[in-house]
Amino acid sequence: MVVSDFFPMWDTLTKEEQDQLTANTLLKKKEAGRLIHDSGEDCEGLILVISGQLRAYVTSPEGKEVTLYRVLPGEICLFSASCILKNVKMDITVRAEKETVYYLIPAHHYKNLTEHSAKIARYTNEILSTRFSDVMWLLEQIMWQSMDKRIAAFLLEEIKLEGTNELTITHEKIASHLGTAREVVTRILKYFQEEGLVELNRGMVTVKSPSALPRP
Amino acid sequence: MVVSDFFPMWDTLTKEEQDQLTANTLLKKKEAGRLIHDSGEDCEGLILVISGQLRAYVTSPEGKEVTLYRVLPGEICLFSASCILKNVKMDITVRAEKETVYYLIPAHHYKNLTEHSAKIARYTNEILSTRFSDVMWLLEQIMWQSMDKRIAAFLLEEIKLEGTNELTITHEKIASHLGTAREVVTRILKYFQEEGLVELNRGMVTVKSPSALPRP
Repeated sequence: MVVSDFFPMWDTLTKEEQDQLTANTLLKKKEAGRLIHDSGEDCEGLILVISGQLRAYVTSPEGKEVTLYRVLPGEICLFSASCILKNVKMDITVRAEKETVYYLIPAHHYKNLTEHSAKIARYTNEILSTRFSDVMWLLEQIMWQSMDKRIAAFLLEEIKLEGTNELTITHEKIASHLGTAREVVTRILKYFQEEGLVELNRGMVTVKSPSALPRP
Repeated sequence: MVVSDFFPMWDTLTKEEQDQLTANTLLKKKEAGRLIHDSGEDCEGLILVISGQLRAYVTSPEGKEVTLYRVLPGEICLFSASCILKNVKMDITVRAEKETVYYLIPAHHYKNLTEHSAKIARYTNEILSTRFSDVMWLLEQIMWQSMDKRIAAFLLEEIKLEGTNELTITHEKIASHLGTAREVVTRILKYFQEEGLVELNRGMVTVKSPSALPRP
């Protein structure tokens, strides 16, 4: 993937804007589990994910985590450049969930571009809107949905991300994604197993019948 | 208030941009309780609140409501122009909570402006970021906080909005703002009353000791 692949309006940008986007871009790599953006801390820049997977999440005062969204190949992580967003007081942490290769556009370069290009400012808007939608979806899930539907939605999302129905994941890990207790996840997964929807093995959840899982 | 009061970067806009913002602006009024923006429905335009108060909220499939944020005089409501935001799939409803006088900038005019002015596009970004922060705050409240702290935070917010400690509000109404049951609110308010923090009368909650209410 090249930088232009990340900007659908690339061809409508001026030569100068295109040059500024590419000239200051760095190619980087982070191992799985490594921190990309600490809540409220640094402001490295815009991250364009080439391969791998990032996870954006919030952490409670007691250390409980809830996944907000994932950033996948071809997508842009804006919160790693949160200093360019005014009025944003969000303690979002971003971590590499898999080994991730990405382009980094330093924050001050990108900020400069959004100040002079309506197209780039508008595109920043679109990225922000998308993440806002993700968070609204999560908010509605938490507010209106029972935990069995949230776990089902999480399993279906994982199947899509991993490309397999055999998920290597612990109950502990699922609980941490959803901000609940391991016991709750275990109880609901066992219920799914009794219903013939999943098969449970140590550190694994095999979804036998994705379409039969409870839906919102 | 005039239109320029709503745009802190007004003086840096071109004469043409200023003219476009004012020329197409309508002055409107909605009575308390009237709908301003229906979830996913219409896309009237950008609303600049001169006086009154708007409430943005989401509704569950069962009709339960949760307040996302308020739009106060001097502030801009962006979701009434959600069609100008790409990728936004949010079922946010906006309603006048008090009689509200506002300027309306029709959506297609504003969209046109964001397409040609980096400054206006960036400002749209700021408004969006602010609302995103509000929703993140709510998400964290719901995820990490117990209901007593959420009710306390709601009462403090109301005191600030109404400019008085004597709030004319029913338990039912508080429950609907917070997306919980009336019984839960009544139980917690009674506990607050026993602690000498509030005084309860029919349709009224008087906060006697705001600083002693439980804090996050």
